Amino acid sequence: MDGIVKTKVLDGNRTAREIRNEIFREVRERQAKYGGRVPHLAAVLVGTDGGGEAYVRFKVKDCLEVGFESTLIRRPINITEAELLDLVHELNQDPAIDGFIVQLPLPPHIDPGKIIMAIDPKKDVDGFHPANVGRMVLGMEAFLPATPMGIIELCKRNDVELAGKHVVVVGRSHIVGSPLSILLSRKQDGGNATVTLCHSATPDVAVHTRRADVVVVALGKPDFLTADMVSEGCVVIDVGTTRVNDPSKKAGVALRGDVRFDEVVDKVAAITPVPGGVGPMTRVALLLNTLKAAKGVVN
Amino acid sequence: MDGIVKTKVLDGNRTAREIRNEIFREVRERQAKYGGRVPHLAAVLVGTDGGGEAYVRFKVKDCLEVGFESTLIRRPINITEAELLDLVHELNQDPAIDGFIVQLPLPPHIDPGKIIMAIDPKKDVDGFHPANVGRMVLGMEAFLPATPMGIIELCKRNDVELAGKHVVVVGRSHIVGSPLSILLSRKQDGGNATVTLCHSATPDVAVHTRRADVVVVALGKPDFLTADMVSEGCVVIDVGTTRVNDPSKKAGVALRGDVRFDEVVDKVAAITPVPGGVGPMTRVALLLNTLKAAKGVVN
Repeated sequence: MDGIVKTKVLDGNRTAREIRNEIFREVRERQAKYGGRVPHLAAVLVGTDGGGEAYVRFKVKDCLEVGFESTLIRRPINITEAELLDLVHELNQDPAIDGFIVQLPLPPHIDPGKIIMAIDPKKDVDGFHPANVGRMVLGMEAFLPATPMGIIELCKRNDVELAGKHVVVVGRSHIVGSPLSILLSRKQDGGNATVTLCHSATPDVAVHTRRADVVVVALGKPDFLTADMVSEGCVVIDVGTTRVNDPSKKAGVALRGDVRFDEVVDKVAAITPVPGGVGPMTRVALLLNTLKAAKGVVN
Repeated sequence: MDGIVKTKVLDGNRTAREIRNEIFREVRERQAKYGGRVPHLAAVLVGTDGGGEAYVRFKVKDCLEVGFESTLIRRPINITEAELLDLVHELNQDPAIDGFIVQLPLPPHIDPGKIIMAIDPKKDVDGFHPANVGRMVLGMEAFLPATPMGIIELCKRNDVELAGKHVVVVGRSHIVGSPLSILLSRKQDGGNATVTLCHSATPDVAVHTRRADVVVVALGKPDFLTADMVSEGCVVIDVGTTRVNDPSKKAGVALRGDVRFDEVVDKVAAITPVPGGVGPMTRVALLLNTLKAAKGVVN
């Protein structure tokens, strides 16, 4: 029938599980072939702030599941910037660690930029160091930022074609919107889309999203994207993960995306849910980067 | 009268001269204040291939005009990659040189990527090193690529507002289209535009250019942009500089842009000519980067 679109809800949990299984097999095969140790990720957590704590716990758990080693390094909230820089230098030198992350946000007395600049780009599995960002832009081998990489992988594995499509990305953060727009534009696998990047200085975002084949929203504003802002049959990727109070949940909080899923779902060809869409793909991207680090392909 | 647009031809020669005068004054003032030497640019030219030769000659002439020192280092076409790398290392170490460029293209037996990676990012006044590209993306102090920087400066100094506008960039080269789209999107001075980047995998470029407030064409395809591809009252920036045979010129060749100037000019609010538009601005951008290098603000 005309006007009826069969919507596909893109299952990030299933796709991420698939990838974790592949990584697990690859690690086992490499072990059998070459011996030696398994990939090893270290995570540095400063203080015990809720968000960071949960993220790091997931990262460590994910490592276990794919057969990686992991080391969780905790430091008190009053660690000095100099002490944290010393720790980064130690990890840079440690031959037993393939890659490491310093969980953000850091307490206000520490400049995150300084910490990121101190990380050896060869171990920068978050892909935040400018050397990695520049290599990404130029199409060189690099650690790609986790969320953009996860989104591209999710589309690829669920037959959502991006090449040749008009993708409108809403939000220009350094960790999602901006690098995603760069990756999607490149003349490379996972790229070749025509990308429009919208942001806080765009007078009317809806003008652009309505023209898009694919809309990616990465603002952190619940309910931002409404049904009237997208065209019939497009694809919607929701990167938002805002914690809101929700007494119906065991933990008292729920995750909310940037898309009004209930009304947009009926109009689109495919959409990612929150939770269970982009989130699990972001997590698995860190594992892919750690595997890459262990293989030594970025240098 | 309705439909009549007063077109402004953006004069790159005049604007570049203005900037050179400012640089000259700044150099003189710095000399008077701090003494010491003037900014010093070195240019490495391998072989005697026509294009590179002319470009380097202009760069040296420009230095002279603003009171910089310049050194032109010529090497024969059969220099080995190892020898050229040695030269780069020497220039990296030389405290008398603030910044240097290795003129491209290089002969086929030399990998340009290897040469660029060997340049100390602090002296990389072309802004081609991934460390500079990454710093640019992240909004850190960096050497910006000359043509994108020149375009933004040309607009700024001729009251062509880009912030809040929809800019469609056609062409995703590493030296023009791709970095320009990044610079224009940033939450920073010279940015805040909504940018769409079109390229060879865009099914119908005209769909996008017709929607644009500002169109930038950087393809190297003469006559690519025709009047039917732009909307009434938009701004057109022509980055094309293709050499074509032209017996009417003294040199027997002429430069041709990517825009059919004769038909587009009547439709737009502003447009850059070729020659005399973006070209002179690209040249002056190298001087601005050299001045920046001498001041030591990028590190």
